[in-house]
Amino acid sequence: MKTHFDGELDLFKDRLLVMAAKAETMIQKSITALQDRNQEAAISIPEMEAQVNQLQVEIDDRAFKLLALRQPMAHDLRFIIAAMKISSDLERIADEAVNITEDTAVLLNSPPWHPMMDIPRMAEISGEMVRDALEAFVDSNATKARTVLSRDDQVDALKDQVIRVMLTYMISEPQKSEVALELILIARSLERIADHATNIAEDVVYLVEGKDVRHHAER
Amino acid sequence: MKTHFDGELDLFKDRLLVMAAKAETMIQKSITALQDRNQEAAISIPEMEAQVNQLQVEIDDRAFKLLALRQPMAHDLRFIIAAMKISSDLERIADEAVNITEDTAVLLNSPPWHPMMDIPRMAEISGEMVRDALEAFVDSNATKARTVLSRDDQVDALKDQVIRVMLTYMISEPQKSEVALELILIARSLERIADHATNIAEDVVYLVEGKDVRHHAER
Repeated sequence: MKTHFDGELDLFKDRLLVMAAKAETMIQKSITALQDRNQEAAISIPEMEAQVNQLQVEIDDRAFKLLALRQPMAHDLRFIIAAMKISSDLERIADEAVNITEDTAVLLNSPPWHPMMDIPRMAEISGEMVRDALEAFVDSNATKARTVLSRDDQVDALKDQVIRVMLTYMISEPQKSEVALELILIARSLERIADHATNIAEDVVYLVEGKDVRHHAER
Repeated sequence: MKTHFDGELDLFKDRLLVMAAKAETMIQKSITALQDRNQEAAISIPEMEAQVNQLQVEIDDRAFKLLALRQPMAHDLRFIIAAMKISSDLERIADEAVNITEDTAVLLNSPPWHPMMDIPRMAEISGEMVRDALEAFVDSNATKARTVLSRDDQVDALKDQVIRVMLTYMISEPQKSEVALELILIARSLERIADHATNIAEDVVYLVEGKDVRHHAER
């Protein structure tokens, strides 16, 4: 039988999932606007950011009350601490989607640029990393969380590739330097999103195994 | 009379201050290496990063034990939660100092570049913001924390200025695009450091006033 406390924990988990879904949608919309050269796709981003921010405040507040009133032990305590950290990462993911949208706005004032290179691929992988990290959290699945960790290097390599090509491009067509710079900054934002997904996955491993993998080579 | 719990909290606070001092030193050293064109100044950065990471693990571990064994209430509970968030921001500040050092290494392989512009000033302000945010935390001083919040816009404006000038530079001297790009990335890292200091200051306001100023205009 579920206790009242279990019900509160479920509600808490549910809010975090809503927040994660919003953050992931924001990534998709920001990249769609970039790919389609159409800022319409990103029109709901500011409103969604406000919702994500509000959810973070709500989650922290619920966490504080659960800690203060329920004094949870062991696994529940770790779960609530992890949820607060995860909500902080999700909030920063949403911020990066806003950054991408702002950088895209600058691009849309410039003439069309060369193919997007690996940027859509980076967005796809980072978005999947966020989704999988959250699924791993909800299912307390450390194995799934570890698959997120392994994809971070892939995103880093793609970002290095974007920077390398854009630098060549800056040198050969200096008048398009701003376009190239914005694409580099967008690639960096996607790399950050992957980093945040990695942080979440590390928190999940800690939650499930009680093992801190944040700064270790044991991945 | 101090209780055993007070002693544990003091020790906990002390570790966080050690962590903050290391992060701040890392910012200074990374920028000294850049200004002096001498990577020697940054030679201890990788070791310091490892120490900061270790401190974060230790602080989280102490926090978990305090929460589990002492079941602190009200202000102490908020204090411990804030300390965990702050240690996470300090760890990311240390990461940015590492990024600056890596970007500087690329620069040192290039011919000397134009003046550093506002980058040393950005580093100075961000470093002060980190220090003041931590002092505000230790002294539970919300007024001091709010002075940190107000300096964030200043750092943002300096970063925009660096980007603007570097873009002109990329167009007029395209063969120096890489140098200009690295300087932009360093300015972005400093902006992130200021953002993390801002997060810390917001946590302090919340801790002292129980008021969440993270996503409000009331600053």
